[in-house]
Order: sequence, then structure tokens, then C-alpha cells
Amino acid sequence: MKALRFEQGRLALVRGLPRPVQQGEALIRVTMAGICNTDLEIVRGYGGFTGTLGHEFVGVVEESPEASQVGVRVVGEINAGCGRCACCKAGDARHCPERTVLGIVSRDGAFADYLSLPPANLLAVPDEIPDHIAVFAEPLAAASEVLEQTGIGSGQEVLILGDGKLGQLIARVLLAAGCRVRLIGKHAGKMKVAEDAGIETVPLETARNWLPCAADFVVEASGSPSGLQLALDLVRPRGTIVLKSTFHDKAQLDTSRIVVNEISVIGSRCGRFRNALDLLSRGVLNLEGMISAQYPLDRGIEAIECASEPEALKVLLIP
Amino acid sequence: MKALRFEQGRLALVRGLPRPVQQGEALIRVTMAGICNTDLEIVRGYGGFTGTLGHEFVGVVEESPEASQVGVRVVGEINAGCGRCACCKAGDARHCPERTVLGIVSRDGAFADYLSLPPANLLAVPDEIPDHIAVFAEPLAAASEVLEQTGIGSGQEVLILGDGKLGQLIARVLLAAGCRVRLIGKHAGKMKVAEDAGIETVPLETARNWLPCAADFVVEASGSPSGLQLALDLVRPRGTIVLKSTFHDKAQLDTSRIVVNEISVIGSRCGRFRNALDLLSRGVLNLEGMISAQYPLDRGIEAIECASEPEALKVLLIP
Repeated sequence: MKALRFEQGRLALVRGLPRPVQQGEALIRVTMAGICNTDLEIVRGYGGFTGTLGHEFVGVVEESPEASQVGVRVVGEINAGCGRCACCKAGDARHCPERTVLGIVSRDGAFADYLSLPPANLLAVPDEIPDHIAVFAEPLAAASEVLEQTGIGSGQEVLILGDGKLGQLIARVLLAAGCRVRLIGKHAGKMKVAEDAGIETVPLETARNWLPCAADFVVEASGSPSGLQLALDLVRPRGTIVLKSTFHDKAQLDTSRIVVNEISVIGSRCGRFRNALDLLSRGVLNLEGMISAQYPLDRGIEAIECASEPEALKVLLIP
Repeated sequence: MKALRFEQGRLALVRGLPRPVQQGEALIRVTMAGICNTDLEIVRGYGGFTGTLGHEFVGVVEESPEASQVGVRVVGEINAGCGRCACCKAGDARHCPERTVLGIVSRDGAFADYLSLPPANLLAVPDEIPDHIAVFAEPLAAASEVLEQTGIGSGQEVLILGDGKLGQLIARVLLAAGCRVRLIGKHAGKMKVAEDAGIETVPLETARNWLPCAADFVVEASGSPSGLQLALDLVRPRGTIVLKSTFHDKAQLDTSRIVVNEISVIGSRCGRFRNALDLLSRGVLNLEGMISAQYPLDRGIEAIECASEPEALKVLLIP
């Protein structure tokens, strides 16, 4: 099979690889995969990953120890735990200290003809969700995690920093949850996509002029080391910042601001797929507008370049 | 009167100043004041304050619009609000955007013969608390704020980074609240003081060898920009870091760790004096050992130098 791999500091489309068959795991034929900012950050050096990239996918189970899974169209939780630690025993492999993570930590990913995951990680995709929407399950689960971790709920005002893929998805999730959302960004095309989905947008320069601002909740999804500092300017004393961005660089941060204003900064990563699939089934998120391009996996390197463009949103790969 | 002032980038003991009489406020004759790390940070440039330093004090009211306060021995909340904003109306001037703060923001402080505060800021000191203990009310209130803001309570394990004044007080407060406390530090003398108060101590180098650690709660009170990074190493996934240190420098921070491990970082500053006075009345905190030296205000500059020594804990000033 072929796969888009990051090895020895460079991207390469590698052919003639064996299928990633793992004892006790399911083998999934990937039908569509999505490029995430984490993939782009890995190519810039984040996390020190070597192997096949990609963790957003939809596919069909070809082999599985669970016979009922064979032939089923699935998405999959990307964290595979040890099964023995306290986290795993509590049913949450997301924080298992020995976890592997699809295409991110010690496990080949989804930019390939096939991938392998434990059967327990897989969820059947309802028929009403087409592949190009089901592929959003993983980032949408991550976006939904914001609701699970914080007191954010219906009627609350939330500022979201970043008009990229994650910011756009978080805005859609919070809007669907009944929040008053304002998305702060600087890319005209991306802002238009958000507006088309009914999201109120605010140009970054306008938001900078609000200072001092007093938002109850600010979600930092700009993907930039300077985003947290801006979030600190926008949040009210004793307010909450949800931190979503991961990147290769360290951030320069005036942590005294966190202390003096008694801010809560809450890190947020992967979420529950069940919530995401429920949201996708409802069909209310206007995700089509977020698809910037679709490439065959053969042109995967080009697709990564496309996804790195400032105005790009979701770029999909088809093996 | 005389006062220890920070003006034009330098410390000076200034004599012949008028008493700080303010319309509608009480005039307090300071009988004892304490030097805090914030005072030392201001001298290093933190916060851009100009004026009389000092915010930890005990004194006697000489004049007040509240006649019943005259002659009463008091401590005082250091934040003076506008009285009109939402924070002030909710009874909490600590986050009033227009607040002045005794010896920290736009208000002359306690390293002087006299200071001025609104009558509502003053609390009578119970007779059983002597001056050299009552002067701990402000930092002890700040230490108690950790309990008010977090889920930390009886039976919980807490690591505290920093064997300085604030770390020592937080350890005492949490120990009194029934927590299992371990204080991580690097100064032999200070660690001994903590041990004498019944606090379990761990040398910094030992704690570094714990990595990866998995503490539920880590309180960062090291006063160092590197403290938060160590706290991130010590806390478990989905654990809580309480951030107490304020300093002049920015911190270099791997914020992706906060995201990946879904850490909550909670800034914590000033607390309620009532709680602190109640604790002081109980007389269980072993504070005497924390007093490193006592100086007349005339030797205030020398006292600041003494308080800056690595092994110094609380240095008191007597006007």
C-alpha cells in the first residue's frame, strides 16, 4: 500500500508498504482523510513524530477480531491506551501515559490506504452522514470537548480566537449549543465561510481595539504563540480561557496577568466521538463550506502544501 | 512623617512627608509592616509602581469617618475599589478595574508612619493576636484564596513549589485544612523552618527525579519564571496548577503541554481577611519561625536587602 509519511525531517509518499496488520486490532481501509493543523505542526517539528501522518479519517473495516465490525463504515478514536492503567480502566485512554495516538504518537496514521486501530476505538457511521462529513468526526469531537470541560452553555457569550479549522468547528459547536459566539480572525475568505454558517465574526484589529475587554469565556484556537497573550487581554478578571492550540514553539507569556486577574486557563484536546456523530447526524453545522480542496493521496505532498496556505480550511485526501 | 519609597527607579527613605489624609478614608498609624516578595519585585520593575511601598501591616486607627474605628487595632484589605462597578457592587473590590492597591497600584503603602484606607477595608484584630502575627493577615488571606478557588480540601495531596514566604504560608493553610502537603524547595534553612511547622519537605532535585509525576494539585509559589514549567512536569493529566507567583519577567512556556494534558491553570491572588484572622486566632500555624528579622523603618533599605537574601523569610518593619 501507499502512505504519506514524515521521516527524517521530510515528507514522502511511500509505496509498496505492507498493510499495518496488528495483533488484536482491526484493519480499516481508509476511504477519506482530513488534514489537521497538528499534521502541519508535526512537519514543522512538533511532537517529534516519525511515521505515517493523519488522524482524521473515515473508512471501512476489512478485518477485525470483532466479526460484527467487518464491512462497517467507521470513524475511530485516535488514542489507543495500554488497557491496564487507571485512565484506561476508567474508560478514557486519552490520557493513558503509555498511549499511542494515530498519526501523532508511535502509531502510523490515516494518510494511507489502510490503518490499524483497536476494535474498541471504532464507531459505526450512521448512513445519513456522507464520508466528506463523517471525516470531521475527530476534530468535531475535539471542538465539543470545550463544552464537556467548562461551564460554557446555552446563552453564554464566548469569544473564539482563530478563524482556522478548529476555531470554525468550535464556533459551530457552541452556536449549536445556544451560545452567543463571536469569531475573531484575520483571513477574509475564512471569515466569509464562518459568516455563511451564521457565525458572527470580528476582525482581529477591531478586537484589539476593545482592550480592555471583559469576556467571560475566550477560546484560544489561533494556532499562534501570541494567541494566549491576546486571550489574556480579552478575558475578564476571574474569567476562563480555553486553550486549544498546539504548536512547536514555546510561548512568551506574562503569567503575572493570570495571577493578578485570577484567570482560569484550561487546556483542551481530544473529545468524545459519540457527541460528534450525534451533531453530524443533526446536519446543522454547515461543514461543506469548510472544505477547501480534495486531493488523491497520490498528490498528498501537494495537499499538505495546499492546507498550509493562509486561507485554506479543510483539505481532504482520498487514498 | 517618614516613608520607604520607590521613585524614579530607586528606593529611598524620605522624611518630612505629610500624613496621607484622604477625604472619606481612615488614617492608620502603622505599628508593624511586613516585606513581601511583591515589594522586592516592584523594586525590580514589576508593575511600574511609584510611591510608598508595603501592603502588609497592622496599625491603630487615628482618624476615621466611622467614629467607632478610632483607637482600634486593625489590619486592612489592600484593594480599594471605585464603589460603582459590578465587582464593587458585588462586594469584591479585588477585581475593580479602577482599583488602587496599597503600596502596589496608585496608592501609597504601609512602609510609613501612617497610611490611609477606606473604613470598609479595615478589620479589627482580636486581642489574642499579637502585632508580629497579625501582620501576616494579608499574605495568609492570599494563601487561603487557594482553598476558595479550587477543589482542594481535606485529605487531598498537594505539592507546593517554593519554600519562600508564600509557599510556606500556603503549606500551613492547606495543612490546617487537612490536606497532605509536600513542600518542594532548595533552601536548607527555609526547609528546616517548614519542617519545624510539621510540613513534609522535598528537595527540588528529588522532585525533578520524580518525573513524570502525577500530582492532582500543584501550587506554584516559587516566584520563578521556570516554576510553571516544573509544575507542568509534576501535575497529572487533567490535574490543576494554582499559579501564585508574580514577577517582572515573562515566562517561556510550552503551552502545548497544557493542551495535550488538559491541565487547568488557575491564577490566584488576594484572599479574604476574615478567613485569615480566624486562622490566626486559632494559633496553629507556627508563624514565629517564619520571622527572619525585624528592623526599624529608619533602616528600611537595609531591611529590603535582608529580605532579598536567598534564605530570608519574613522581614518586619517597625515605624
